[in-house]
Amino acid sequence: MDKNNSNENQEQEEQVVNPWEVSAKGKIDYEKLIEKFGCQRLDTSIIDRVARLTGRPPHVFLRRGVFFAHRDFHEILDAYERGEKFYLYTGRGPSSEALHLGHLVPFMFTKYLQDAFKVPLVIQLTDDEKCMWKNLTVEESQRLARENAKDIIACGFDISKTFIFSDFEYVGGSFYKNMVKIAKCVTYNKVVGIFGFTGEDHIGKVSFPPVQAAPSFPSSFPHLFTGKDNLRCLIPCAIDQDPYFRMTRDVAPRLGYHKPALIESLFFPALQGETGKMSASDPNSAIYVTDSGKDIKNKINKYAFSGGQDSVENHRKYGANLEVDIPVKYLGFFLEDDAELEHIRTEYGAGRMLTGEVKKRLTEILTEMVERHRRARAAVTDEMVDAFMAVRPLPNMFN
Amino acid sequence: MDKNNSNENQEQEEQVVNPWEVSAKGKIDYEKLIEKFGCQRLDTSIIDRVARLTGRPPHVFLRRGVFFAHRDFHEILDAYERGEKFYLYTGRGPSSEALHLGHLVPFMFTKYLQDAFKVPLVIQLTDDEKCMWKNLTVEESQRLARENAKDIIACGFDISKTFIFSDFEYVGGSFYKNMVKIAKCVTYNKVVGIFGFTGEDHIGKVSFPPVQAAPSFPSSFPHLFTGKDNLRCLIPCAIDQDPYFRMTRDVAPRLGYHKPALIESLFFPALQGETGKMSASDPNSAIYVTDSGKDIKNKINKYAFSGGQDSVENHRKYGANLEVDIPVKYLGFFLEDDAELEHIRTEYGAGRMLTGEVKKRLTEILTEMVERHRRARAAVTDEMVDAFMAVRPLPNMFN
Repeated sequence: MDKNNSNENQEQEEQVVNPWEVSAKGKIDYEKLIEKFGCQRLDTSIIDRVARLTGRPPHVFLRRGVFFAHRDFHEILDAYERGEKFYLYTGRGPSSEALHLGHLVPFMFTKYLQDAFKVPLVIQLTDDEKCMWKNLTVEESQRLARENAKDIIACGFDISKTFIFSDFEYVGGSFYKNMVKIAKCVTYNKVVGIFGFTGEDHIGKVSFPPVQAAPSFPSSFPHLFTGKDNLRCLIPCAIDQDPYFRMTRDVAPRLGYHKPALIESLFFPALQGETGKMSASDPNSAIYVTDSGKDIKNKINKYAFSGGQDSVENHRKYGANLEVDIPVKYLGFFLEDDAELEHIRTEYGAGRMLTGEVKKRLTEILTEMVERHRRARAAVTDEMVDAFMAVRPLPNMFN
Repeated sequence: MDKNNSNENQEQEEQVVNPWEVSAKGKIDYEKLIEKFGCQRLDTSIIDRVARLTGRPPHVFLRRGVFFAHRDFHEILDAYERGEKFYLYTGRGPSSEALHLGHLVPFMFTKYLQDAFKVPLVIQLTDDEKCMWKNLTVEESQRLARENAKDIIACGFDISKTFIFSDFEYVGGSFYKNMVKIAKCVTYNKVVGIFGFTGEDHIGKVSFPPVQAAPSFPSSFPHLFTGKDNLRCLIPCAIDQDPYFRMTRDVAPRLGYHKPALIESLFFPALQGETGKMSASDPNSAIYVTDSGKDIKNKINKYAFSGGQDSVENHRKYGANLEVDIPVKYLGFFLEDDAELEHIRTEYGAGRMLTGEVKKRLTEILTEMVERHRRARAAVTDEMVDAFMAVRPLPNMFN
């Protein structure tokens, strides 16, 4: 695995994907990423199996390949089929006030998994990480963690099955013991190989990987999982988080724990085109959950990279290049109706539908989605945040 | 400071002093250590000042130069003279069941400081450190921490002024926030310079220095020091712990905290002679608080390195070499009567007193001391350990 990563370093001019940087000269080559990271492609048979086991159609993110890679997801399904439960773990680094649509993707998908499998979920807010990487104060990181928790709660998680925690509040006790156990199994050379730290990086960075690894093990949450040390963990996340969990999976057997399973998504593309993740530093690269209908319309019309031709004549003649067209890609994430999406792809690709029409439809869908999120978020009180973040047992978490 | 330490590395064959290793070809050269570490010698004027400010004779460990070096101790005294209080911080890495006499030295001295200055004290049991360095399980490290806490309590600390904590139990919240703040200020290269870690060391080691640094700042203990962020900290410890606190002092101003002051001791010599600390791996190198009177007598007679001559005739003629004589050195630590010590030194040095007589007197003193400790320890109940380790305010800590 270290070797893979040193290769990765050598090729870094071409494509860099790690938890802090996603960049490529052209489009991200996800096939190459799967090969380098050593995960598996999520194929149709496994998606069909999810549908069969849960008795509901697979989520749009599964049908459309947004979640496209995994590690040992079939083992989770095997266990589930035997009647064993598992738990979900996902998280967020609270570095900004407002979330953009890309941030919502893992949470929307995690909510689906929670509903479909009826399993508990832990959500880690890594305020410590952002304090160290983004040079935020402790207080500001904690404030952002709470603000982001409101957006996460607005995604509709079941409070009887969901525990949200911030590292600054929760690290300690059993969680800290697992951090120490994990840290003991990982050399400095190893984290350099995985994460590319240098000697001039501060030791907070070197210390952090065990913090993100610890929630993969049920014993980190005694109030939830006492006596359930054998419970498996499934982690839905974007594929840039894979390095953390490669490390975690290496360590797990040495600690007598199951390796966490992963189900990993593509990056949500920037409005300007699919060369990486959206950037918090460029507000026009993304649509935020705080954007107004007017903002959304403007951003889509002005910035969403179009695969349409440069004149109506050429467009009618050659059709749109769907491979690079951002409105069509966004519709792939958020337009649930498969028939309508297929219709748009066909008509637009053939030049019978114009960019303006596609952008109009996308604007409608995103405006409604963002408006719905905003209403849901406005209904999230501080008391609800406290309730989700309370360290408490969840007696009905498997019902 | 890094430069000093890389020099230290180059000269390591001659003398190595760090928190995990103390060795020298001959005797430890403490003058050189003071120079390299950059601390100050504790001179007579400062000892006289302690006597004057506390209204009691200076502790035998001050009078005899056992605590021989310091950092900013005069600033603590300045503040104390102005009517400002401070707090004491010391600790122990719980790696063994039974403490030896060398382990008691900092606690005996810290008790004196607590009594003389009437100040609160925090005692850190670094069970996480020993779990990582000694490859103990979490459970075993925690068990040893509690066992060691009993020996520490037996030294007579005032429960209304003393908080004992284990890292596995206490790390979290404000303490963890300070760990993160400290870690942000220290690069990997810096800890390599200070502690000599290599790339093959696990990241738990790299992560640990902020854990030992955090108790130096009052905000790590909100139940004790809320609203007292300006409280100064004095750390009594053996000089091998200096590297941790050099690092801590470098970081302190960047976090808006006072630098902790230090008062540092020599190492308690092994029975076999003064070339380092006593070794837990060789039970005959040390006298343990669990040794019986018979054990003590045997160890002193059999192993205590003597500066006496090889025949009575030569001894009468040349006298004992007090510079290398372990019984005399041990008496220097534990025989409180200055006149008697001086008498022994004179008579023994002149050859009028024989090794056997000195060893007999030392046996009496240590047997009584160990017997007193054993009685005190036997009286320490689990409830008392819980009480000392309870996270609680100490309303009378400055009275």
